[in-house]
Amino acid sequence: MSEPLRIAIAGLGTVGRGVVKGLQQDAALLQARAGRPLQLVAVSARDKHKDRGIALPADIVWCEDATQLLEQPIDLLVELIGGAHGIAKTLVEGALAKGIDVVTANKALIAKHGLQLAQLAEAHHTDLRFDAAVAGGIPIIDVMQHGVAANRFERICGILNGTCNYILSHMQSRGIAFDEALAQAQAQGFAETDPSTDIDGMDTAHKLAILTSLAFGTQPALESVQLRGIRSIDALDIKAASDLGFRIKLLGVAQPLPDGRILQRVEPCLLPKDAPLARIIGAFNAVQLEGHALGRLLLEGQGAGELPTASSVLSDILQIARGSQTEVFTVPAAELQPLAPATADAMQCRHYIRLSVRDEAGVLAAIAGVFAKHTISVESLIQREHQPDAPTSIVIITHECSAAAVQDALSAIAALPIVTHPPQHLPIQE
Amino acid sequence: MSEPLRIAIAGLGTVGRGVVKGLQQDAALLQARAGRPLQLVAVSARDKHKDRGIALPADIVWCEDATQLLEQPIDLLVELIGGAHGIAKTLVEGALAKGIDVVTANKALIAKHGLQLAQLAEAHHTDLRFDAAVAGGIPIIDVMQHGVAANRFERICGILNGTCNYILSHMQSRGIAFDEALAQAQAQGFAETDPSTDIDGMDTAHKLAILTSLAFGTQPALESVQLRGIRSIDALDIKAASDLGFRIKLLGVAQPLPDGRILQRVEPCLLPKDAPLARIIGAFNAVQLEGHALGRLLLEGQGAGELPTASSVLSDILQIARGSQTEVFTVPAAELQPLAPATADAMQCRHYIRLSVRDEAGVLAAIAGVFAKHTISVESLIQREHQPDAPTSIVIITHECSAAAVQDALSAIAALPIVTHPPQHLPIQE
Repeated sequence: MSEPLRIAIAGLGTVGRGVVKGLQQDAALLQARAGRPLQLVAVSARDKHKDRGIALPADIVWCEDATQLLEQPIDLLVELIGGAHGIAKTLVEGALAKGIDVVTANKALIAKHGLQLAQLAEAHHTDLRFDAAVAGGIPIIDVMQHGVAANRFERICGILNGTCNYILSHMQSRGIAFDEALAQAQAQGFAETDPSTDIDGMDTAHKLAILTSLAFGTQPALESVQLRGIRSIDALDIKAASDLGFRIKLLGVAQPLPDGRILQRVEPCLLPKDAPLARIIGAFNAVQLEGHALGRLLLEGQGAGELPTASSVLSDILQIARGSQTEVFTVPAAELQPLAPATADAMQCRHYIRLSVRDEAGVLAAIAGVFAKHTISVESLIQREHQPDAPTSIVIITHECSAAAVQDALSAIAALPIVTHPPQHLPIQE
Repeated sequence: MSEPLRIAIAGLGTVGRGVVKGLQQDAALLQARAGRPLQLVAVSARDKHKDRGIALPADIVWCEDATQLLEQPIDLLVELIGGAHGIAKTLVEGALAKGIDVVTANKALIAKHGLQLAQLAEAHHTDLRFDAAVAGGIPIIDVMQHGVAANRFERICGILNGTCNYILSHMQSRGIAFDEALAQAQAQGFAETDPSTDIDGMDTAHKLAILTSLAFGTQPALESVQLRGIRSIDALDIKAASDLGFRIKLLGVAQPLPDGRILQRVEPCLLPKDAPLARIIGAFNAVQLEGHALGRLLLEGQGAGELPTASSVLSDILQIARGSQTEVFTVPAAELQPLAPATADAMQCRHYIRLSVRDEAGVLAAIAGVFAKHTISVESLIQREHQPDAPTSIVIITHECSAAAVQDALSAIAALPIVTHPPQHLPIQE
């Protein structure tokens, strides 16, 4: 195993630059830990002359067309182009089929095509690793596949999107509105110009689908993730939740139900403010694993960025250099079961509800009547202080009930003439 | 790789029982993740007839003498006897020399004899894994060897002893004295009848010596760990620290200095109460890794107990079953450098100091004079409320200075006639 591992990198954006820096600056350390040299032999990116702050060796092969990388004498392809389709998919499939191992940070690709890629990797005895696809520098994939692999997993719960956590943290700490927090995140480089993939939850859903597969031995099932983003979160919600001892976080949660179905959901949730995940602020990510033997394990770290993501890519490269012996999704692809999806209705939990109503006599009675009719038991009901001539907020915490029951009740309440705005409701994660 | 992995377990205490349960109850899951069956073929423990709440199969080989396990047809020995010398060492050495892989939870053995055992394992192409030796269910060894292996580590900082954290947490939350918190920990099963290994810090030192070796590529150097336990922590310290916005934790900290020396220290420290490690309460453990690429990664979980520790043992077994390709201390034993130890004097930090003095005129002037003479700059000085006829507490936070300077100053202060009790001093961990 002292032959160099010959590496090609497709994509020299932020993460690619970090990977090149690591290979250059830490060559001796990486060689010692890998047991062999790591040798960058070819790269591909759109503009050869762009200044990326890295100096590529003169003898490196530069490919305008990324697929040309597969014609080079390489052992490993690092795919950092991104996207579930197109060139990234073509390239990864081509590499695996040619006996070239692959490391990728491409969450969409793995979430959507992970099963087929795992089958392809097995058929050609190649390896496919993707720790950088989920939670940046947090080695969550590796931990699930190795360090705590002996567990029956009971639940995974994560803050997997730094943009959303930055926005929600700033709404909390500064008392500002969603739009203002988003604008600040964009100004700070924590949100894209088009932030929809992040704030509408799809980024978290990609990551959750991958974790679900690893945890429960199921085929990745992105399409069955129950998805809701954070656009509807109002400063009033942050304030009301805070006053009641909660924080609002966008969580990705996967858990098996007693009937064998698996519930995957991405949605803003209330967490008791002392819960470990409630304490994760700013652009940090965190994952809480619950295993039958392990109990609760929390990992908290940088969820994105040049060096943290490169840390995961390079650590995957090290494992391949050593001769990784782990199946792509821990178990052989043929053993991955189709995921029987559950909907959020299958889960009973407390709910937070905020209603905007006119300040009139009889309002509470009308609302209470609707909840009673839908057999939703109310744990607490607080009429919030309000400005003159503005609608009153009523904040309700229910006892445990299903999201479907809450939605039915809220449909009925929304139709009442006293209600001025669409009701808000969020589950409480215990 | 579909041949069963034949396993012998030496020691059927708490952890051994958990490992047997796991092998029996999760056989199918473990086989799927290992790619081969895990087969328990032999065990050894002192009393064959003791009821351990587990049913061993009739055809299992029971060895009264643990060394007899090595005469069985086994691939892997799980050593759960404990202790740095005697039978545990003999057994592990014997196994490695016979080509039998080893998984152990024995921190003292690895901290004291890790280098020789790694050399032995390499010479015989056997594997030695010990994730359960540090922080119970937290897969910290595996994370350092795999998930974040591409990092230059800059500091490791951990709460590695659940007994001490339980005691300090209860002193904080209940305002009780050390002795009372220790008695409660003993009553709850969180402390041994003889708690000295835990509360005097040696248990943490063993674990830190192992982490230091993995992080910095050095030979384990238990003897150079600067060691101080928690017996001296008074309820007054907990209260004063809390009033100033700090928590007191027993930390194990390892960090390289600019001159290449490595400082390993185990001591009670003040942490700002919002620091991630300050929030770890009760018997939980946590490790904070700082890497040049990764930034800060925190892992928090169960540090002890039957199932959490068995989780780490079984996960190590899985890796060996798959064919682990990682050196014992990540790099070959011959590349591990002797550790050049630094003493705590090499580190500048703020210090907390508590003095018990008679409530007399001129006391502050006398104390301030001593600090000035030792060129220690005082950030804050608070004279605490006191009972009539009781000594007054003076609590001082210094600016950054060395522990040696503080000790010199305190020796001078202790000699003043106004001082009624030995001074307390603790570093502040930023």
